[in-house]
Amino acid sequence: MAQFLADELTALGAEVEQRPLGKQPGKEHLDLPPVVVARYGNDKNKKTILVYGHYDVQPALKEDGWATEPFELTIDEKGRMYGRGSTDDKGPVLGWVNVIEAHRKAGVELPVNLLCCFEGMEEYGSEGLDDFINAEAKKYFKDTDAVCISDNYWLGTEKPCLTYGLRGCNYYSISVSGPAQDLHSGVFGGSAHEPMTDLVQVLSKLVDPQGNILIPGLMDLVAPVTEDEKSLYGNISYTMENLHESLGSETGIHPNKERTLMARWRYPSLSIHGIEGAYSAPGAKTVIPAKVIGKFSIRTVPNMESEDVNKLVFDHIKAEFAKLNSKNKLDVWLQHDGKWWVASPKHWNFSAASKAVQQVFGVEPDMTREGGSIPVTLTFEQATGKNVLLLPMGSSTDAAHSANEKLDRRNYIEGTKLLGAYLHYVAEEPATE
Amino acid sequence: MAQFLADELTALGAEVEQRPLGKQPGKEHLDLPPVVVARYGNDKNKKTILVYGHYDVQPALKEDGWATEPFELTIDEKGRMYGRGSTDDKGPVLGWVNVIEAHRKAGVELPVNLLCCFEGMEEYGSEGLDDFINAEAKKYFKDTDAVCISDNYWLGTEKPCLTYGLRGCNYYSISVSGPAQDLHSGVFGGSAHEPMTDLVQVLSKLVDPQGNILIPGLMDLVAPVTEDEKSLYGNISYTMENLHESLGSETGIHPNKERTLMARWRYPSLSIHGIEGAYSAPGAKTVIPAKVIGKFSIRTVPNMESEDVNKLVFDHIKAEFAKLNSKNKLDVWLQHDGKWWVASPKHWNFSAASKAVQQVFGVEPDMTREGGSIPVTLTFEQATGKNVLLLPMGSSTDAAHSANEKLDRRNYIEGTKLLGAYLHYVAEEPATE
Repeated sequence: MAQFLADELTALGAEVEQRPLGKQPGKEHLDLPPVVVARYGNDKNKKTILVYGHYDVQPALKEDGWATEPFELTIDEKGRMYGRGSTDDKGPVLGWVNVIEAHRKAGVELPVNLLCCFEGMEEYGSEGLDDFINAEAKKYFKDTDAVCISDNYWLGTEKPCLTYGLRGCNYYSISVSGPAQDLHSGVFGGSAHEPMTDLVQVLSKLVDPQGNILIPGLMDLVAPVTEDEKSLYGNISYTMENLHESLGSETGIHPNKERTLMARWRYPSLSIHGIEGAYSAPGAKTVIPAKVIGKFSIRTVPNMESEDVNKLVFDHIKAEFAKLNSKNKLDVWLQHDGKWWVASPKHWNFSAASKAVQQVFGVEPDMTREGGSIPVTLTFEQATGKNVLLLPMGSSTDAAHSANEKLDRRNYIEGTKLLGAYLHYVAEEPATE
Repeated sequence: MAQFLADELTALGAEVEQRPLGKQPGKEHLDLPPVVVARYGNDKNKKTILVYGHYDVQPALKEDGWATEPFELTIDEKGRMYGRGSTDDKGPVLGWVNVIEAHRKAGVELPVNLLCCFEGMEEYGSEGLDDFINAEAKKYFKDTDAVCISDNYWLGTEKPCLTYGLRGCNYYSISVSGPAQDLHSGVFGGSAHEPMTDLVQVLSKLVDPQGNILIPGLMDLVAPVTEDEKSLYGNISYTMENLHESLGSETGIHPNKERTLMARWRYPSLSIHGIEGAYSAPGAKTVIPAKVIGKFSIRTVPNMESEDVNKLVFDHIKAEFAKLNSKNKLDVWLQHDGKWWVASPKHWNFSAASKAVQQVFGVEPDMTREGGSIPVTLTFEQATGKNVLLLPMGSSTDAAHSANEKLDRRNYIEGTKLLGAYLHYVAEEPATE
């Protein structure tokens, strides 16, 4: 894939390099796939836009439930283009290639200099990429004026969106241990403190069924909603029916669109994911597990700093465990964290994209955030110091990571036009920071 | 094994039959191993004792951690006889064979008629045995005056015990479901009711860290402790050090021996075993599970009737779930139940065994109950209507079901004498019910 992409870009006249990222950590016999970087245009009078995408895909087997061969592009009568990577993220990457090709064929000069950064390990945690971006920020990427990433999705299926925020994630483990080995509940039930009993008590003190986080002080870290921000929600093309459809049930917490989207995008949430070490198979087993590890994570938002969150979490859990008067042993730790990201949707990078949406689709784009994280976004922002825009091509029904992944023909064709139009509007914007 | 056992008994002059149990349920190409039944003596003037044991064993592989070949009997310098089945339950079964052989060699008539019932599916849930016992209760087993089972263990390593009670077990599942499929916590966290949050809340309302069951009314079903019963606990050879040793930690709940043993034997307990459907692997996964099933069980004691327990459990769980105001769906059901069993330790069957212990070991036996269940005990009691005695041969350190299972030579030799002496004292007891 790297070679294919490099060949395509080279044939179009770009200066292309395949940059090695060294060996895969923990698998030292394997080279990481290279980052394909490319420069198209080198005119000091033009803005330079850095675009990111990835040429790797999720695994796929026909027997996972695909109606067609996952690695053969299959287009149905409704113009749905099925195939692994169609929407995540080969389609959008080809979008950029198409933009260059279209300009060449039309004999129109690209209105900006384009820097491409296409990686091959995104679906495996972008191994090696952060170091590469940081190392090249003042070298290969030094001319960057703004960044554009096309690797997420519209909120629905009709209307494009520009994404200006992502939540972060702090992932925690709580272990409770007591006996030296698993015990038989007949023999020991009633005579020994059971780690599972204690863990369930502690987990029950983290979040209530309405999603309210019960950790004292945590909500004080959250930035208040501004009027400006509120105004972005009213026009968003989203309904409670959309929520119910994506849930497959009517188990939403909030009564309306605005509160639902705010809960998803700009407020923190806490989810309990599961318990390691307890009995998890179907059927019945009368075990008292000796050591159990509860897993939960908090989706973070401005202005929650990871260290502050950790302190509140650790203090709360230790205090709740102390109340239990158990002789078992508690431990709690952060497994990993990733910071939230919010860009200014008023930056010229967004204004240009908004005008492009109006030009190509005839509507104002939804201004969205996402509840999940796309860590490379923050890496680019921090490494380059420039505004980052998420400009998706695919729609909410594309089933990225699932069987029958697809990209609608409309999204691909109009989406390619959108990427091209965006570059033209970028060129017209006044070059403020 | 069945053939070996039948041959041994036949050679000693017993009337032996191998009774088929039909096909294994769900594996209709497999015959269940036969029950070996035998009668030794048929004198209307003698009592008839029905003895039970099993000739099947747990699986064992040397690589599971055995120091010796698991299926070669290996005796070390301390007289520990290592081998799969040595204590569970081939040793005790051979004990009965040895008793007959010793009487024949010594030219002493057995003082009772002996009925043997040796099965080959005990380690797989005694498939087919209950039906067989019930069918033969008024036929092959009709002369039975009392039952003796040697298939459990001493409380410690020095002093024999007679076991007069077992707890029952009611095993429950609670499912909470909401969305149609697992959700991404970044995308949906905060906007939907999470089944795991609800389940943890419900599980936290079942039992406290001190082992107190929180289900209203449940403790009212428990028979009060009598003075007679209390008097059985003081002399029992057991210490808090024994508890700590078996736990591998000092995480016992109660301050002394009596309360610890009562909590284990004659009070109910509630253990939470685990959760099906949640994330249970090492590492981190940011999933919101769509459906989770919590598993817990209650060890039951006199006079808790299963139906009464079920009603209290279901009512409590439904009431606690209702308080959560969640739109998710709750379901709770009994997976299986098995009744507790308590015999009168003052019955002649126990008096005879107690005298035999004093004769062979020079001490009064501990009168014990067990926290776990041995379902065949209750089956024999209900089918025959006769007193059942559990008269173990092995000690607490025998590692039944584990690697390096063993039976001490002392337990085997003196234990065989005990089984023989028991029969003689049985013959001397007045034949009251």
